[in-house]
Amino acid sequence: MSSTDTINRIAVITSGGDAPGMNAAIRAVVLAAENYGIEVIGFRHGYEGVLTNDFTKLGRENVEHILQYSGTIIKSARSERFKTDDGGREAAENLDAHQIDGFIVIGGDGSFRGAEHLAKFWQGAIIGVPGTIDNDLFGTDNTIGYDTAVETAMDALDKIRDTAEAMDRVFIVEVMGRNAGYIGISSAMACGSERMILPELQKDKPLTVDALVKHIEGVHRVRGDSSYVMVLCENQWPGGAVRLAEQLEDRLNFPCRPCLLGHVQRGGRPTAMDRILATRLGVHAVELVRQGKTGVMAGVSNNDLSSTPLPETWMQRKQLSQELIDIQTKLFNPVKKERHKAVQKEQH
Amino acid sequence: MSSTDTINRIAVITSGGDAPGMNAAIRAVVLAAENYGIEVIGFRHGYEGVLTNDFTKLGRENVEHILQYSGTIIKSARSERFKTDDGGREAAENLDAHQIDGFIVIGGDGSFRGAEHLAKFWQGAIIGVPGTIDNDLFGTDNTIGYDTAVETAMDALDKIRDTAEAMDRVFIVEVMGRNAGYIGISSAMACGSERMILPELQKDKPLTVDALVKHIEGVHRVRGDSSYVMVLCENQWPGGAVRLAEQLEDRLNFPCRPCLLGHVQRGGRPTAMDRILATRLGVHAVELVRQGKTGVMAGVSNNDLSSTPLPETWMQRKQLSQELIDIQTKLFNPVKKERHKAVQKEQH
Amino acid sequence: MSSTDTINRIAVITSGGDAPGMNAAIRAVVLAAENYGIEVIGFRHGYEGVLTNDFTKLGRENVEHILQYSGTIIKSARSERFKTDDGGREAAENLDAHQIDGFIVIGGDGSFRGAEHLAKFWQGAIIGVPGTIDNDLFGTDNTIGYDTAVETAMDALDKIRDTAEAMDRVFIVEVMGRNAGYIGISSAMACGSERMILPELQKDKPLTVDALVKHIEGVHRVRGDSSYVMVLCENQWPGGAVRLAEQLEDRLNFPCRPCLLGHVQRGGRPTAMDRILATRLGVHAVELVRQGKTGVMAGVSNNDLSSTPLPETWMQRKQLSQELIDIQTKLFNPVKKERHKAVQKEQH
Amino acid sequence: MSSTDTINRIAVITSGGDAPGMNAAIRAVVLAAENYGIEVIGFRHGYEGVLTNDFTKLGRENVEHILQYSGTIIKSARSERFKTDDGGREAAENLDAHQIDGFIVIGGDGSFRGAEHLAKFWQGAIIGVPGTIDNDLFGTDNTIGYDTAVETAMDALDKIRDTAEAMDRVFIVEVMGRNAGYIGISSAMACGSERMILPELQKDKPLTVDALVKHIEGVHRVRGDSSYVMVLCENQWPGGAVRLAEQLEDRLNFPCRPCLLGHVQRGGRPTAMDRILATRLGVHAVELVRQGKTGVMAGVSNNDLSSTPLPETWMQRKQLSQELIDIQTKLFNPVKKERHKAVQKEQH
Repeated sequence: MSSTDTINRIAVITSGGDAPGMNAAIRAVVLAAENYGIEVIGFRHGYEGVLTNDFTKLGRENVEHILQYSGTIIKSARSERFKTDDGGREAAENLDAHQIDGFIVIGGDGSFRGAEHLAKFWQGAIIGVPGTIDNDLFGTDNTIGYDTAVETAMDALDKIRDTAEAMDRVFIVEVMGRNAGYIGISSAMACGSERMILPELQKDKPLTVDALVKHIEGVHRVRGDSSYVMVLCENQWPGGAVRLAEQLEDRLNFPCRPCLLGHVQRGGRPTAMDRILATRLGVHAVELVRQGKTGVMAGVSNNDLSSTPLPETWMQRKQLSQELIDIQTKLFNPVKKERHKAVQKEQH
Repeated sequence: MSSTDTINRIAVITSGGDAPGMNAAIRAVVLAAENYGIEVIGFRHGYEGVLTNDFTKLGRENVEHILQYSGTIIKSARSERFKTDDGGREAAENLDAHQIDGFIVIGGDGSFRGAEHLAKFWQGAIIGVPGTIDNDLFGTDNTIGYDTAVETAMDALDKIRDTAEAMDRVFIVEVMGRNAGYIGISSAMACGSERMILPELQKDKPLTVDALVKHIEGVHRVRGDSSYVMVLCENQWPGGAVRLAEQLEDRLNFPCRPCLLGHVQRGGRPTAMDRILATRLGVHAVELVRQGKTGVMAGVSNNDLSSTPLPETWMQRKQLSQELIDIQTKLFNPVKKERHKAVQKEQH
Repeated sequence: MSSTDTINRIAVITSGGDAPGMNAAIRAVVLAAENYGIEVIGFRHGYEGVLTNDFTKLGRENVEHILQYSGTIIKSARSERFKTDDGGREAAENLDAHQIDGFIVIGGDGSFRGAEHLAKFWQGAIIGVPGTIDNDLFGTDNTIGYDTAVETAMDALDKIRDTAEAMDRVFIVEVMGRNAGYIGISSAMACGSERMILPELQKDKPLTVDALVKHIEGVHRVRGDSSYVMVLCENQWPGGAVRLAEQLEDRLNFPCRPCLLGHVQRGGRPTAMDRILATRLGVHAVELVRQGKTGVMAGVSNNDLSSTPLPETWMQRKQLSQELIDIQTKLFNPVKKERHKAVQKEQH
Repeated sequence: MSSTDTINRIAVITSGGDAPGMNAAIRAVVLAAENYGIEVIGFRHGYEGVLTNDFTKLGRENVEHILQYSGTIIKSARSERFKTDDGGREAAENLDAHQIDGFIVIGGDGSFRGAEHLAKFWQGAIIGVPGTIDNDLFGTDNTIGYDTAVETAMDALDKIRDTAEAMDRVFIVEVMGRNAGYIGISSAMACGSERMILPELQKDKPLTVDALVKHIEGVHRVRGDSSYVMVLCENQWPGGAVRLAEQLEDRLNFPCRPCLLGHVQRGGRPTAMDRILATRLGVHAVELVRQGKTGVMAGVSNNDLSSTPLPETWMQRKQLSQELIDIQTKLFNPVKKERHKAVQKEQH
């Protein structure tokens, strides 16, 4: 596929966990395609809809004002059947039956692995658009939905701080990100959290209740009784925030309260940044199809449009910013500071 | 105390769990008092501050622009020591030492019981202002903080619905209200929740996993696969939303996800309704002191200012609206409707 | 129409200026009707759609999850043609052609006058549901949309206060309510506005720039340089907030900035209170039709369901709360207080 | 100043128009400085406070939880007196009297010009931190406050869209940015605005009412009657949104409504992105002082920390993204598309 003239019809799916901004990306695909006279078909429920031929035509009138809503108008799902060779073959047949020239999949790494699987059986152009709140895809500064998820986590943390300050208590807020601490570190920094437990910081030495109790007591020693808000990424503590709150309360003899945000983080009106990112990437995906590209993810790297081979997006590891980690854990850590001073005094 | 001329100094505390709007109530007390040339002292950390003499003078300059913030500038707490006779006596002595004429306590039923305790040892005017997100005080249509807490729960439920719709899943959102289902029923109705578990509805027959599974399956049968959002009041299920989600997932074979809002519901910018209610009640409390009233709660009943003897506020039971319960559980229940139709058909 | 058995089909319209919560009311009408086996038809664009026969069937699947969105799925409009006798007759004929038994109009006083007009030509049951952000209908404590509009105005005022405090400036925020100061007084109280200009307060003596300048200078004298935020209802000053800001800036020699919220106040996610009110009133309207009532507005008065003959809703005047006016203009007015004190001193 | 050992005391000011996130930047300066044993003094009201010696010591306890609030705890202002040589000299003397080693100014280009002025009279290290909602400073991807301002504008535009859709009307929303269209283009793209009027697009050919009327009619022709939302940057139309709405209404014969957001855009809780940016830049500014740098602005360019000589920040012109302009004005423009198609048809 080397000529843009051959592109007459594009299919789009949203796949895997939904993310705020997916609708804005769908809209951008449709409006850009319409500009070039390309038809767009949306399959519902991700790859499952490609298998079951559950589709809808998408025109300007269907997408004009969806960019302020989260969720996805063509719904999302995970499909086990599609992962088999039979599934891949069937999907390819359905795409060909619809005379699809380009296939755009909006989702995370699981969805992109699906795209690779499809490529074994189908010859059209396949482009990935990074849509996941986890922000854990290599090849793009941010993924669609991540900024909104951080705002949502921040909003909850702000509210917790209000009441924590009023009552001088300890709170543990569990946020999403079982494999990547992006939501964790960003919401922690945005809210001045006293402590964060991220997958990236857990690898060397497992955290103990003892260490956490010591830190809480240290903060209280330095600042007087005061609020203490901990950000805990999911899957980083057995039993999660609920269990950890019980364990700390047992030791500290004052109330420790859990909060489990869960899928609240997937919803909510997308932020402007997510809508703009989704719009740029949706347009970019259509342009990539027109340029004859395939097997790549449309991204924004250092503010510019980029494309990255799909396997790299999950095989290469995007690194959490060490700068941010250092600010939160060292520079702003009241307890570390205390010890630091003590050491300095001894040296004199 | 029969003449308003004798009121020279008022003390105010916020006590028990904090509620959004408490600051607006403090502000109203201070501004109203200032208008009458009455000084105001705020004791910090509720009754504890009265015991430890931890206080601050409050003037217009301290409270001018606090009404948009939740929490409480004089902090809140629960005090065990105050509940003893020695505690009550000590508090009374401190109030007398400060030449306090009127004592305004902003809080819930526990705080009002404390006010009754204080009345055994102190002769000044004691006025309660209903500040609790639970809305479970008799003698006022709404308590300060309730409207904001419902908005916060609704906001989370809206976000859950976004993602639930995208993925056709079951969600269980745990909200506050262990003794009263006000937040539960209001947020459930506001979000079109498919099911709510409230303390008031639990009394006759304990709910079983079986019954819930049957209802979920019924909804799916009536509507096709679709989102299902359950509102669960705290303490109404062993292990809470986390455990219930596990139990349902075991039975249903598709994802059921919990969300535990916790103290997020206590924070956040107070709604206009809460700020206005708090303003009216703060002013009303000062007027009640000036009128020589004591041992009553300032309230708003059927839109008018009211006062209710403190013990009635917790001994009389405010009833959840049967109208709202019927709409949610009968009129709008897709499954009940189905059965209802069936019954009707049999009768013909 | 004395028996509920005769109700088989209901029509619903949204008419006049849209208000947040109208969708929740439509949903409630549909779900309640469905429960009783009644069909619902929605005419689009208000009375205009009844004339042009622009309609859609409304079932559970169309309304299930619309209650979190403002606007109206059946759109709203004002229709001049309908106001004529020919228009009324034509509308009646169309309703009969659809075999409509009950007609529910969600809107404000203009829409209810339209309902009265329709009643001259049509025999079915006509029920009004109060949907307007202005809250100016007699017979209901609140109208649908009012609470949300106040929240929106408050949100803007809070933001203005942030920057006003940072820069010590004067701001004039123009809010809706050309005939009624409900949004004005509620948002002013909620935000601790220093001054409000409401239609109800303007009647006796017209306000002058002089008087406003004097008040601003008085506040600055009492409090030192500080922020000053004025709430101005639309149509209460020639040229509105933009012109008034210019006039004040000319006199005060420091920046005075206008803000004109306009129709922003009609949008936004409805508050829980609006959704619940809309739900109750939508259900109530269906019940009133079933009870054979006609020519009344469904309302909530002192927390209970009520019905009021349509002409009373606009002929009787709902009064702004004098209690709230007194708190804002007298009790909390720093300048009034100053003068009050001065007067008292002279008397001694 | 080549050794970090010599830095004992830093002064910080916020200057010019306030921006959400300024408090987060102050906090970061204080916490980072404290970590290195550096004292921090805040002068109030920008340069004015340096002249009047209006200052406060800033420690961890003053800034711990301010990062969720907009405005600035040390207030901001513009100072005419400081711009004179006498003013500059006096400021320098006051800084020396306080033994200040480093001076951090948080503000926009006017504030940075002030910093250059100060440098003529004072030898200490001077670092700028970009705090302005306009995003018009060269040397940093984003300025502090810009992301929040876009969210606020977007929020208003979303609400306008709700009601515009319900009533099929034309709206003109005036946003900030008299010299730079950043808020304009970002909020326009985020909300799917039909038209935007930015300073950058106005330069070649002045826009006429005719051209706007033609575009509105074109959109209606393509889409049928529908909502039309225009984003107008301030100062780009004589009389602003209010006047333009009158002019369009005269021509179109249906309602066109203005909305003037004004300083609402400066307030509101900072977004996570603004808080994180402010935190990074506040820390970076302290590090730059410690490294002996002076006369530069701390920025974030392509995600990395950067520093730019102050004069470059206002002399070099940061360009609006042509990619975004093209998407909004060409690719997504329904009217352009129509003409484009017509041309293509003629060619066949």
